[in-house]
Amino acid sequence: MLTKGRIKFIESLKDKKSRTDRKLFVVEGEKSVAELLKSDYSIDSLFLTKSFITKYAEIIKQKRFTFESVEQEEIEKMGAFGSNNAALAVVRQKQNIAPKIANTDLVLALCDIRDPGNLGTIMRIADWYGIKHIIASTTTTDVYNNKTISASMGSFLRVSVFYTDLRQFLKSSFLPVYAAVLKGDNVHKVSFPKAGILLLGNESNGIDTELAALAKNKIAIPRFGGAESLNVATAAAVIIDNWKRSS
Amino acid sequence: MLTKGRIKFIESLKDKKSRTDRKLFVVEGEKSVAELLKSDYSIDSLFLTKSFITKYAEIIKQKRFTFESVEQEEIEKMGAFGSNNAALAVVRQKQNIAPKIANTDLVLALCDIRDPGNLGTIMRIADWYGIKHIIASTTTTDVYNNKTISASMGSFLRVSVFYTDLRQFLKSSFLPVYAAVLKGDNVHKVSFPKAGILLLGNESNGIDTELAALAKNKIAIPRFGGAESLNVATAAAVIIDNWKRSS
Repeated sequence: MLTKGRIKFIESLKDKKSRTDRKLFVVEGEKSVAELLKSDYSIDSLFLTKSFITKYAEIIKQKRFTFESVEQEEIEKMGAFGSNNAALAVVRQKQNIAPKIANTDLVLALCDIRDPGNLGTIMRIADWYGIKHIIASTTTTDVYNNKTISASMGSFLRVSVFYTDLRQFLKSSFLPVYAAVLKGDNVHKVSFPKAGILLLGNESNGIDTELAALAKNKIAIPRFGGAESLNVATAAAVIIDNWKRSS
Repeated sequence: MLTKGRIKFIESLKDKKSRTDRKLFVVEGEKSVAELLKSDYSIDSLFLTKSFITKYAEIIKQKRFTFESVEQEEIEKMGAFGSNNAALAVVRQKQNIAPKIANTDLVLALCDIRDPGNLGTIMRIADWYGIKHIIASTTTTDVYNNKTISASMGSFLRVSVFYTDLRQFLKSSFLPVYAAVLKGDNVHKVSFPKAGILLLGNESNGIDTELAALAKNKIAIPRFGGAESLNVATAAAVIIDNWKRSS
């Protein structure tokens, strides 16, 4: 059974300051925790239901994880998500280190993405399309937010997010920059290179003017109907799909 | 100022049974309400802030809307969404009537979409690509859910959702059916017809087996990386984009 102190501690990690101070974050749900156990993330504490322990006995034994056995209801009470919660892990954050970008990489650059769900969905999309690195402005929402981790559906294990001065990054990068805007070259007609940086902007305000100026290429998804815009994660998926089929 | 009774009434509309019994739903936010005023929807009651009344004085006068002047804080307290809420409308639901589908239409068919946000996002995507009609299984989430209306970003005004027996609909339709699945023909290589039905399935379980059997064409988004799947709204956007560029 979970003590009150434990519950309070885990709930405190919903708060960014608390996460950052402690360099910890929370992973919930059977699939995400099962994938986590196989990864190189360092686990602080594990709370597992009996069904999870039985199902993943082999890896738990093999990697000598210590864990606390809990009831599903206890996890559900603590977690951000109500149901089907068979496991919860408190995990050590990785250091914010610049990734090694190869000259064959397609990289995402995020300017001020504020919605945690959007960031997680973008990570899942990046992972689907084999993109390994996301470079985010320091104003972009925290990758370790519970909602981001959950929306990424385990993709946080394969896609890195590096927070930095995006202006400096774009200026110093050797890769061509493509900015996603509402009025730009039709992505159906652009011939994309294999490697490059796709720059995506804030949910309401798009890409910061100064950053957009650093992108030689402005691209847009053709519109056929009445909606004023697409959600940023939706737009990311459509553009990346066009990029991968053309390059 | 809003009376307690009014607040209770509006809050009751977050519940599906209450919405269905009263045949009403709620629209929130400046942009959605402003668009609503120009539409053919019948408005039951309007709650507007002073700034909204000033900005949209012309249409309010022209269409002789009656409204209650309220403070922004009052709307924010009632609404599902915390901030920037300048207007709230209680609106009459439209009847669930089969749309007239033309033999040039691209139509979406939704099998058991459960998440209100996903349905709203799919409506916004449909609207962007000029798709006017969505046919939904009776198990699909309510189009009049506050979160669906909000996620549609005003697209509920241009995209209709008709709830019906999807099996009967697919069997009797003259349009070719394309089912979105994890293993199917690569959408980058499919030559889509102008008109057709794109069938999308449940968030966890995909398309019902019996329904999938009614689709002559099975299509899939090529995967380049590690994610097991894409969110259904993301997948919808990518497939529709491929459809529109090829047809």
